[in-house]
Amino acid sequence: MSTILKEVLSANDSYARDFGDKAELAMPPGRHFAILTCMDARLDPAKYAGLAEGDAHVIRNAGGRASDDAIRSLVISHKLLGTNEWFVIHHTDCGMETFTDDIMRDLLAGSLKTATVDENGWRNTDKGPGSKEGDYIDWLTISDNAKSVIADVTRIRNHPLVPASVPVYGYIYDVKTGKLVEIPEASAAGKAA
Amino acid sequence: MSTILKEVLSANDSYARDFGDKAELAMPPGRHFAILTCMDARLDPAKYAGLAEGDAHVIRNAGGRASDDAIRSLVISHKLLGTNEWFVIHHTDCGMETFTDDIMRDLLAGSLKTATVDENGWRNTDKGPGSKEGDYIDWLTISDNAKSVIADVTRIRNHPLVPASVPVYGYIYDVKTGKLVEIPEASAAGKAA
Repeated sequence: MSTILKEVLSANDSYARDFGDKAELAMPPGRHFAILTCMDARLDPAKYAGLAEGDAHVIRNAGGRASDDAIRSLVISHKLLGTNEWFVIHHTDCGMETFTDDIMRDLLAGSLKTATVDENGWRNTDKGPGSKEGDYIDWLTISDNAKSVIADVTRIRNHPLVPASVPVYGYIYDVKTGKLVEIPEASAAGKAA
Repeated sequence: MSTILKEVLSANDSYARDFGDKAELAMPPGRHFAILTCMDARLDPAKYAGLAEGDAHVIRNAGGRASDDAIRSLVISHKLLGTNEWFVIHHTDCGMETFTDDIMRDLLAGSLKTATVDENGWRNTDKGPGSKEGDYIDWLTISDNAKSVIADVTRIRNHPLVPASVPVYGYIYDVKTGKLVEIPEASAAGKAA
């Protein structure tokens, strides 16, 4: 058993021992909202937005992007589980700003192993096997994180399965301060009708 | 400004005021692993798996499914940010077990507003407008959550962009106890080569 696996199971034992009355929580989010944010390790949405277990849906992917899958999750969140306000929260210093589709596809074609980055950009340090399958994936990279928040809120707002009654707020989390900074143009685009 | 928005920003103010040395955290996850789990409000992966900010990538969607988008995120997680162990964690009493593609598509065709559920199943309580766009989405529902963990770990293991060196562990989180329960058949399927 790996060290990480042992540590995770040990931490879980402690959590479960002190589980309290959380067994009584209902399936629908008690505070009726959802957050779409990045998978980045520095972000803890429960902490940065003040969530207790049972409060809100949290959807996370690389970039916090409004991918088809994030929209699948948001539509389930509203339609079946009653959330009626949504946040899209990207962040400063996002890994998604450090590469492009072409860079990722070239890296993967050369090797599947972890690449390294320095002031000259990304490079593979070993040789293959790689795969051209990366060519068939849109990596949803980000060139400007205010623009990506606006684009994603707009995509959600205009999606035919999203009711006009759900407001979508657009924010950036600053990894240097912990603060949520609104992107007013995004929140305006996400306004409920 | 909605009550929820005020509460989230107020909680964020408190978090940012006591941010400590988290500004120094690096982008790559310090403990080199990633968790794919469900968006369910009752789950707090940082708490149930013992994560501090900076430790691990957390990817979440409806069901914790190995969707194309989750695989996009996992490949970025390993290839660019160095995670080398992955967990797939579904859970008991998952909303994804309560419906099928046909049910969701019918509900959405009738109305976009939140449906209700009782012992007779899901139903709309208002009339439209709805949308047939739900027909074009695979909702990735779950009929048996041990089977869904096995299927998702297997999909990740066999994906051409996932190196054989990354182990994928399969677990179910029990919402009544807080415990992580291994699905040995999933972990076996996800074993590193």
